Amino acid sequence: MELSKSKNKRKRCIKLSNPVYVENSAGVVGPKEGTSHFAEGFDKVCKDPFLGKDSWEEAESELQKEALDILLRKACITEEQIDCIFSGDLLSQSTASSYGLLSFGIPNYGIYGACSNCGATLALGAVLLSAGYAEKVVAMTSSHFGSAEKEFRFPLGYGAQRPLSSTWTVTGCGAFLLSRENTAGSKVCISHIVMGEIVDAGLKDPQNMGGCMAPAAALTIGSALKELPYSVDDYDQIITGDLGEIGSEALYDLLSLQGYDITKNHSDCGLLIFDREKEDVHAGGSGCGCSATMLSAYVLEKLKAGEWKRVLFVPTGALLSKLRSEEGMTIPAIAHGVVLEHC
Amino acid sequence: MELSKSKNKRKRCIKLSNPVYVENSAGVVGPKEGTSHFAEGFDKVCKDPFLGKDSWEEAESELQKEALDILLRKACITEEQIDCIFSGDLLSQSTASSYGLLSFGIPNYGIYGACSNCGATLALGAVLLSAGYAEKVVAMTSSHFGSAEKEFRFPLGYGAQRPLSSTWTVTGCGAFLLSRENTAGSKVCISHIVMGEIVDAGLKDPQNMGGCMAPAAALTIGSALKELPYSVDDYDQIITGDLGEIGSEALYDLLSLQGYDITKNHSDCGLLIFDREKEDVHAGGSGCGCSATMLSAYVLEKLKAGEWKRVLFVPTGALLSKLRSEEGMTIPAIAHGVVLEHC
Repeated sequence: MELSKSKNKRKRCIKLSNPVYVENSAGVVGPKEGTSHFAEGFDKVCKDPFLGKDSWEEAESELQKEALDILLRKACITEEQIDCIFSGDLLSQSTASSYGLLSFGIPNYGIYGACSNCGATLALGAVLLSAGYAEKVVAMTSSHFGSAEKEFRFPLGYGAQRPLSSTWTVTGCGAFLLSRENTAGSKVCISHIVMGEIVDAGLKDPQNMGGCMAPAAALTIGSALKELPYSVDDYDQIITGDLGEIGSEALYDLLSLQGYDITKNHSDCGLLIFDREKEDVHAGGSGCGCSATMLSAYVLEKLKAGEWKRVLFVPTGALLSKLRSEEGMTIPAIAHGVVLEHC
Repeated sequence: MELSKSKNKRKRCIKLSNPVYVENSAGVVGPKEGTSHFAEGFDKVCKDPFLGKDSWEEAESELQKEALDILLRKACITEEQIDCIFSGDLLSQSTASSYGLLSFGIPNYGIYGACSNCGATLALGAVLLSAGYAEKVVAMTSSHFGSAEKEFRFPLGYGAQRPLSSTWTVTGCGAFLLSRENTAGSKVCISHIVMGEIVDAGLKDPQNMGGCMAPAAALTIGSALKELPYSVDDYDQIITGDLGEIGSEALYDLLSLQGYDITKNHSDCGLLIFDREKEDVHAGGSGCGCSATMLSAYVLEKLKAGEWKRVLFVPTGALLSKLRSEEGMTIPAIAHGVVLEHC
């Protein structure tokens, strides 16, 4: 398996010249996610998976709208104070973001890295801020079970059987207010970014996203462990986005080949978000909304409280195209990382 | 028409603290584009629209691969010297980029802003460089007539009649090597970026992309004229991406409402790229590849030669989703700008 032609020479980590503050966050989820152990951490649990709309796509746009509305309210700021939004979702032509953010009148860069979007939007937002080009930026991303199944797999009405390797796309949106200066007394900052790289391990099964993404996660995490002055134990947690059971096991194997053992302090948002005794989600949760809502509800809370001092946060994305997959192509993946610190 | 809730207060322009150099570029096009008046400026004209591949999507990925290969050769550098690529295309889940860039082993941020991708990738690449976080970045984007028609409209085999308001998606990829320091003696730099904003004027016709995009272009160009210390006449050219005939006329009308007359020094890549006496492309050319290949073949050449000193370059994108459009939704648009200067 060719992880990268240049894997040994390449630098993928960037230390921000000024740390960027995570001033506030908002997480909005659907009803199934509302039964999570972390439910109290979400800002809103919607009872209706359609959010009162007529289609899954509109429902996902509404998730984005609600998350941004809540974020603005929580931070006591107006949309005029946001310089720019970095946003993304899983749908063709990022339609959930386009329609969800339309009413706000805020400059916008659309990002596509599948379920790694949360990492990419945080990273690029942090670069714009640390360069001094903006004061406040929002990074946000969403997914919706209904729109994702419609986009990538089978119409829900078919009742298609799901193999045990499959994951359950989280219905949720996480939005993060990033600031250049710590005017709001934030206790969490982004100190480094780890640029993701497209990796293709040759897997073709669209029902095993964890397996497809593990090599990309291994490349990003391995790069951070090699380039940054922090060993595995210097991170309270190394948190991946949505590898699930199969992907997490594969990640451990791939990192052990690089000489790293992260098993003691690794968590995967996909294995955390659902109460798996109550909800049968097979290999775990997934989707852009999985890592984004868990970052808001859980990871940031631990960092804010100082229980954790440093986290390597690595949302993972399978660059799955239904069309290419049906044409027999392999499924490439990417994982974009950020280092979050208590400050 | 509500252009933006905050259109009067909002700042959308960023002056780069250090200009970023456009060190080199590569443009690869298909056979129809090869009959262009600008054909000599393209680095490669492919005779086979399939580029020897089995599908339109693979052909578009191959366009990206060839453009990046040519760029590396022209600049006499290896892929290890590229810190990061900002890339994008029009297809669902940006598949042309995912598969096209897979073999290079270079970190990658995927961007989605439809045909405004060229502006967004140049802008974000320039931010990363001017912040001092990278030495060399590639910004690139592609489109393909075959894959775009398959994605958004009708199978080519139908032979569907095209209304006169429709544009012809350019088969082409443009790749740009941006540098933090001017080690290669470049004569062109990016001095400012103009952040685009999602605008929806209520249009619903997927065969009139120019009309949908004109309001977004008017917002971006109007913002630049208002915020930056340059009047219309301080730009040798104000160049939009792919408004075509209908969109260009609408742009003039919308800007005249803001008190600006750009008719004398406005060009649109969509109206330039095809020899419209030979090729019946109705309202003009379009697609990410339209502005990107014309930037490489024409705009950069004029700036390099010093014939032009300053250009406001504004690729325009219709955030069209086939699904949402068929559900009766309006078509939002966005336009991302950069100011290019002779240096």
